[in-house]
Amino acid sequence: MNQEEISQLIKEKRWSELKEGIVNLHPVDLASLLSQLEPDERKRIVKMVPHETVENLLPELPKDLLTEVILAFPARKSAQLLSELPPDEMTDVLKDLTPEIRKTVFRHFSKKDSEEARDLLKYPSDTAGGLMTTEVPLLPETLTVKEALAFMREKAKEFETIYYIYLGKKDGTLSGVVSLRDIVLALPNARLIDLGKSGVISVTPDVDQEEVARLIARYDFFALPVVDKEGKLLGMVTVDDVVDVIMDEATEDITRIGGTQPLKESYLFSSPYTLVKSRVVWLLLLFGAATVSSSIIRNFKEVLTSVVTLAFFIPLIIDTGGNTGSQSSTLMIRSMATGEIKYTHLYTIIVRELFVGTMLGLLVAAVGFILALFINVSFMVSVTVATTIIAVVIAANILGATLPLLIKKMGFDPAIVSGPLLTTIVDALGLFIYFTVARMLL
Amino acid sequence: MNQEEISQLIKEKRWSELKEGIVNLHPVDLASLLSQLEPDERKRIVKMVPHETVENLLPELPKDLLTEVILAFPARKSAQLLSELPPDEMTDVLKDLTPEIRKTVFRHFSKKDSEEARDLLKYPSDTAGGLMTTEVPLLPETLTVKEALAFMREKAKEFETIYYIYLGKKDGTLSGVVSLRDIVLALPNARLIDLGKSGVISVTPDVDQEEVARLIARYDFFALPVVDKEGKLLGMVTVDDVVDVIMDEATEDITRIGGTQPLKESYLFSSPYTLVKSRVVWLLLLFGAATVSSSIIRNFKEVLTSVVTLAFFIPLIIDTGGNTGSQSSTLMIRSMATGEIKYTHLYTIIVRELFVGTMLGLLVAAVGFILALFINVSFMVSVTVATTIIAVVIAANILGATLPLLIKKMGFDPAIVSGPLLTTIVDALGLFIYFTVARMLL
Repeated sequence: MNQEEISQLIKEKRWSELKEGIVNLHPVDLASLLSQLEPDERKRIVKMVPHETVENLLPELPKDLLTEVILAFPARKSAQLLSELPPDEMTDVLKDLTPEIRKTVFRHFSKKDSEEARDLLKYPSDTAGGLMTTEVPLLPETLTVKEALAFMREKAKEFETIYYIYLGKKDGTLSGVVSLRDIVLALPNARLIDLGKSGVISVTPDVDQEEVARLIARYDFFALPVVDKEGKLLGMVTVDDVVDVIMDEATEDITRIGGTQPLKESYLFSSPYTLVKSRVVWLLLLFGAATVSSSIIRNFKEVLTSVVTLAFFIPLIIDTGGNTGSQSSTLMIRSMATGEIKYTHLYTIIVRELFVGTMLGLLVAAVGFILALFINVSFMVSVTVATTIIAVVIAANILGATLPLLIKKMGFDPAIVSGPLLTTIVDALGLFIYFTVARMLL
Repeated sequence: MNQEEISQLIKEKRWSELKEGIVNLHPVDLASLLSQLEPDERKRIVKMVPHETVENLLPELPKDLLTEVILAFPARKSAQLLSELPPDEMTDVLKDLTPEIRKTVFRHFSKKDSEEARDLLKYPSDTAGGLMTTEVPLLPETLTVKEALAFMREKAKEFETIYYIYLGKKDGTLSGVVSLRDIVLALPNARLIDLGKSGVISVTPDVDQEEVARLIARYDFFALPVVDKEGKLLGMVTVDDVVDVIMDEATEDITRIGGTQPLKESYLFSSPYTLVKSRVVWLLLLFGAATVSSSIIRNFKEVLTSVVTLAFFIPLIIDTGGNTGSQSSTLMIRSMATGEIKYTHLYTIIVRELFVGTMLGLLVAAVGFILALFINVSFMVSVTVATTIIAVVIAANILGATLPLLIKKMGFDPAIVSGPLLTTIVDALGLFIYFTVARMLL
């Protein structure tokens, strides 16, 4: 049954047919269906689907719908639904609830669930601790394959995934990892320690989610173990969570590069009011910054009045500077996000981008010079334009390439040195150079 | 042993110690180490590491290093190395080789390998077919768990992963999937058909890699089966390949948004010459487009000459239009990349963004109006500035929100309607509005 047929059934209030139709829907699709309905229809459907479906549905819902769905059930039932989720998903849901509802849910949790939830809630969402699940198989490294398989058969239901089984020493520290594949293929009496790989790459719970994503992406891991400072296994982050992190981080960067405060929900889920709010602050800040350009022109009013033709080239100079800065800053922001470029590369980058900027500046200036001559402005104005272009391209290029690194060093997100911000800075610089050169030459 | 110690050993030509040190290096790290060496050091090291390490190293190397490493061995040995790789990685490597070297390698392939490679090579790299591996376990759905385990024990080495086992009907069409976990936990006499899930989501080999990535990300899959038109299993795409796709697509979009032709290798691997080449074309195109803005100012020369104060606001108007367009276009480009927004949303988006643009325009214009009054230009110039800002913000916003959708409809990458391109279009529009309003009012 597709989305359209379902919408039709809801419209015609044919609930029993609907119940049949949605029973096989993937939780992700059910969530997206629910988000398009009216609250009372939503409530009706949520109460109609089986317990297990609701459970799987919760982690897929956007914040406000989640609260609505949780409130549709008695607190005891909500707590039960939550406690049956994998710990990382339970924590995500708990974080999205209002403190009040969270408190009510906690009151109905078992002692074990409360402790587990409280342990996980203390990690910020954007760290390895915030992403990890704690239901991870850890076996003594001295076990045999036969013993391991017996253990897995009995306990596997407790674990989110059993494709990696971690091995521990007597003191509980992580000593290696063995794949379920290797266990299945090995002889029953083989020892895990001989099958497994030692020297496992792991992270501590405070490691940033971007770093976790980079490690998993770099090494093509399916999961990454999280250990405490003593090397004891706390949990693991799986690749499916990392896929979401990578997508979210890219969205955040692109939004920032475009000059918008990152949205909390996706575009269609954000109200027009939220969109205005997330854009107006930057727009006004940039507007304020652009007044610097205006006052530069004002300060050179006498140059402009005597040679009005200078005004023709203002857009060309402003745009070329901005475009050059956009190019180098986005290249840098992205290379930093993928982990390729670090602050230690600063010197290499300055050398490279000085060269690249000079080449680009010369090429564009040559075209600009010919153009200026062609539209019949005076020779000296053409020289002024060309000189300014070379200077502005080199300056914009170096600023675009180095500011993201410096901004990050200062602890901010490098993506804020986006096209818009850089363009505005470079504009003022370009105009200043332009009129100074003009005053000297004309 | 860390990177630095290794570099030290190379410098001092202590090869035997080096050999010991790199034996435990992850292929990814070895590739990154090799890329920093001189060709002859590289050759020396490649010949020094065990056969298996070289094999795992190949898929991790950038194009030119790959060719170099392959040429370091006799063709027969290269062919052997390649034929031992998983098919998707073998195909990737083959695609990166020059036609000549590829031909030589093929001459040393077994008949089976040649056929497999030729089959996979016919799919473009950016499709499901180009990403998939063909070594996928497919079992008759009527098998029991015991039979399945026996089969897996015997054949598992052939498969890249055995965590999903696909089930086929008698006619060879894909009927379901069962996880290794479920098999391990089931009773020996259970039938796969009863353990498995039917109605598996699959794709055909021609599906774009972005769509594959979206499906895997949306449903948190670890793998996605690829089937032909008759529903027969051809292979599967695993999540680790999709992680690379997601990262590469984001890089490509961000690079385009910044106004650069996407690079083939990452920043540090690209020569300064490549960087200039990938940037200069756009820079000159945009420069050409910006001449429209210049000629608009020229056409209104008489207005400008009589009221030189109008020139003060050129940067403000240009920047504000560009910034607004950057905001709405990046929001749209990203929402399209994540699959949230499609062409069918065009009408919804126009309505929303008309509202958002009007709100933003009014807010910024109000600030602009006060500012203009404040710096003591005439009242009518202030009115001109404010009116222009409202018009330009609304226009830039709608253009930024709709052009990506239209461009995609026309079959191009929406990310080319990036900040720079849009800014340049909006500049011309803004100046035209500005001087037209000025001519009417002043």
